[in-house]
Amino acid sequence: LLSVDDDRLASRRRRSSAYERLVQPCLAELVGTAFFVFMGCVSVIEDGGPEAGLGRLQPALVHGLAVAVMVACMAEISLAIYLCGGMEMSMVPPYVVSQLLGGVLGASMAKAMTSAENYAKAQGAAFTLLQSEQQLGGALFGEIAMTSLLTLVVLLGAVNATSRSPLVPFTVGCSVILSVLAGGGVSGTCLNAARALGPALLSGYWSYHWVYWVGPLAGALVGAALVRLLLGDRDTRVLMK
Amino acid sequence: LLSVDDDRLASRRRRSSAYERLVQPCLAELVGTAFFVFMGCVSVIEDGGPEAGLGRLQPALVHGLAVAVMVACMAEISLAIYLCGGMEMSMVPPYVVSQLLGGVLGASMAKAMTSAENYAKAQGAAFTLLQSEQQLGGALFGEIAMTSLLTLVVLLGAVNATSRSPLVPFTVGCSVILSVLAGGGVSGTCLNAARALGPALLSGYWSYHWVYWVGPLAGALVGAALVRLLLGDRDTRVLMK
Amino acid sequence: LLSVDDDRLASRRRRSSAYERLVQPCLAELVGTAFFVFMGCVSVIEDGGPEAGLGRLQPALVHGLAVAVMVACMAEISLAIYLCGGMEMSMVPPYVVSQLLGGVLGASMAKAMTSAENYAKAQGAAFTLLQSEQQLGGALFGEIAMTSLLTLVVLLGAVNATSRSPLVPFTVGCSVILSVLAGGGVSGTCLNAARALGPALLSGYWSYHWVYWVGPLAGALVGAALVRLLLGDRDTRVLMK
Amino acid sequence: LLSVDDDRLASRRRRSSAYERLVQPCLAELVGTAFFVFMGCVSVIEDGGPEAGLGRLQPALVHGLAVAVMVACMAEISLAIYLCGGMEMSMVPPYVVSQLLGGVLGASMAKAMTSAENYAKAQGAAFTLLQSEQQLGGALFGEIAMTSLLTLVVLLGAVNATSRSPLVPFTVGCSVILSVLAGGGVSGTCLNAARALGPALLSGYWSYHWVYWVGPLAGALVGAALVRLLLGDRDTRVLMK
Repeated sequence: LLSVDDDRLASRRRRSSAYERLVQPCLAELVGTAFFVFMGCVSVIEDGGPEAGLGRLQPALVHGLAVAVMVACMAEISLAIYLCGGMEMSMVPPYVVSQLLGGVLGASMAKAMTSAENYAKAQGAAFTLLQSEQQLGGALFGEIAMTSLLTLVVLLGAVNATSRSPLVPFTVGCSVILSVLAGGGVSGTCLNAARALGPALLSGYWSYHWVYWVGPLAGALVGAALVRLLLGDRDTRVLMK
Repeated sequence: LLSVDDDRLASRRRRSSAYERLVQPCLAELVGTAFFVFMGCVSVIEDGGPEAGLGRLQPALVHGLAVAVMVACMAEISLAIYLCGGMEMSMVPPYVVSQLLGGVLGASMAKAMTSAENYAKAQGAAFTLLQSEQQLGGALFGEIAMTSLLTLVVLLGAVNATSRSPLVPFTVGCSVILSVLAGGGVSGTCLNAARALGPALLSGYWSYHWVYWVGPLAGALVGAALVRLLLGDRDTRVLMK
Repeated sequence: LLSVDDDRLASRRRRSSAYERLVQPCLAELVGTAFFVFMGCVSVIEDGGPEAGLGRLQPALVHGLAVAVMVACMAEISLAIYLCGGMEMSMVPPYVVSQLLGGVLGASMAKAMTSAENYAKAQGAAFTLLQSEQQLGGALFGEIAMTSLLTLVVLLGAVNATSRSPLVPFTVGCSVILSVLAGGGVSGTCLNAARALGPALLSGYWSYHWVYWVGPLAGALVGAALVRLLLGDRDTRVLMK
Repeated sequence: LLSVDDDRLASRRRRSSAYERLVQPCLAELVGTAFFVFMGCVSVIEDGGPEAGLGRLQPALVHGLAVAVMVACMAEISLAIYLCGGMEMSMVPPYVVSQLLGGVLGASMAKAMTSAENYAKAQGAAFTLLQSEQQLGGALFGEIAMTSLLTLVVLLGAVNATSRSPLVPFTVGCSVILSVLAGGGVSGTCLNAARALGPALLSGYWSYHWVYWVGPLAGALVGAALVRLLLGDRDTRVLMK
């Protein structure tokens, strides 16, 4: 099945225009990230408060299912895919820019849809969980470890030839659901600067914002290193060939 | 896999009778919409009240899973599929009529199954969330944006040749689950006139009913435009070929 | 894909012994139903009471996921599969007996695992929701309508050649989840005499027990009729050929 | 599809180095188990207490989805796979050691991420549910029965040739979700010594720890016996050939 796909992809690539190779993927990233951040922010702003009884399940399901249906929306992970040979270097910067722009667009859509009152209560769906230095260690560790889990699932499910699977949208979505459910109370489970930037910009909340850039970036590097050094197939692995 | 399917579909179409081409798809829409609206209304009428603690998770899962197992039940989306070349114009009016009839049948089944007391409390599972003009902006924006997300998932998953997937029932169902979870408190997350008409008719509740026709219709047009203009493959796209 | 499966199934059938054709399927039904009823009863007995806050979600997920992973455990549906040409008549009685025996075994396992105190509170996971004649109409209607939905999903997903899908375990499981979530408060959502018999026997609770035989049986006939008369492909359908 | 896979697997095996045959699978077990135990422990330590309202749903989803995305992490089940011919004897001890080491690593990661206060309240995510001899019978029975269910799903979905399915990660994950939801209140639903060892070691909590070795081991033997004696195909089955 995979080799058939490869052939079809190759013939498609031969026929495809510059628009299809360069512009369309970035537009898809922008639209995908916009809808992901839009629904994610709305789920946080309109969660109904503690008495609604859903707790972290509501944002967990919304973010995870949005990732599953939108597929593409992870800035650091684009880098990890490049590091494992799944993307050309020239595509990484436009991808990352598209994702960050999409995140700002999505956060604006969330602000347009929700009432000012609920928006203020949620501090604009920015990550306002971190309020003191004591939380930083656990939060940073959590972002790194959970992003490396997510990166592993993406790289083994979509890039590494011997383990690729058509079910990868669902395994990636499930990784997000479980990470928000387990670690949401420690770090907010951002996993992704594109999810953090837009809400921070629109609500003007920047405290400890760097955690959501450093943590996911380091996690993506850890995940890519695990695949490149130890877990990848012969073509992907650089050691022990 | 897809080309095999195309061949099989084509040979099936050659052999198929007028009944199979014209009547059976409409019957399937009617039965599918009836069961979708039936279970959706029952989940709202019999939600056990706030003390049951499930909040929006109950209607979110019921509507999303019903869409996943029934596949076909979206009036505006039939229009979007036609606009992207996935359906002949002559099939759109009978499809839409079948879906609206199915919605009335489903709402009647929900009334037959539930107690008069619970039915009255839920105002017949009609969309009674909107009570003032101040809510209209957010609700209309939400219906448009969430229906365009749903339409994108349907068009890219079922119509656009380079991205079609056999997993589309589940991605569409997940889109409904996440939309009800995130936006249910703002607009009720109808996404579909066929879901709104039956309950409104049976309970006589028509306040702001137009939101559930204008919003989903506009959202379907936005989603179809995104695919036709920017995100579709060469055959589907009309710009940048 | 399906034709390959058919070939493989045919060659397997030629090679297969009487044990594999006759005894093993019944053993699989017995084991599958036993685990389904076992986990279903435990989820009801050990639900933690209203303060645990999961409400109908706990039994809904447990029953639906058990159906998805066990695949086979529906007595009335065996009848519907036979009526639509998916099973030989000679297999229906042994299947139904295996399922009923499996249900009694599963209910006994649930009793062995749970404390006498919790077991008594739940009245042995028998369907004790129905306490008065006034509930009967809605409960019977619900069992019929929801079993016909489930039967439709099974017949179109596993028997009808033009719509068969390898995803059918998950669509059937999702049908059970949504039916318990939506209709659990009205009828208990049994859908299946094999789920009702074992717990009734072990707890000695037989009030309105007939509802869980008449309702699912009638629902299976409605679902089979819809496929045989209207929705099936040319080989399955008896009208409008 | 399966025969294609077999060919590809065979050719891959011919080409593969000792590293790929012996070391990499053990590393994958270690990493997979580490992430599984890490997220599982965090979900228990950071569950927000009873007032968060998610009850057993949070650990149920986290453990089940982690199994689905990590695939490999079950010590006793490695034994069952060996007993049914899916693994060579020489691989069983290194697999089991890798899983136990991964569990200790994962539990350490959970301790690093969470606050000392929450960690102490959860007794380190060790299985502290069992507090008296009266609970032992039900807990042991539950671990045996639920592990045999899980083993059946793994063996029929991944080893037995006539029932293997590419959906097996999701059916195994669903088995874990339903087992934690149904039986979490009786035994803690460990199903796996590798999940129990690390937390016990890090928190120094060893009361009734043996239940989580004896129960899963006995359950894996029951599941393997059912497949070997009754439910497997001709190649897997030793009786009634």
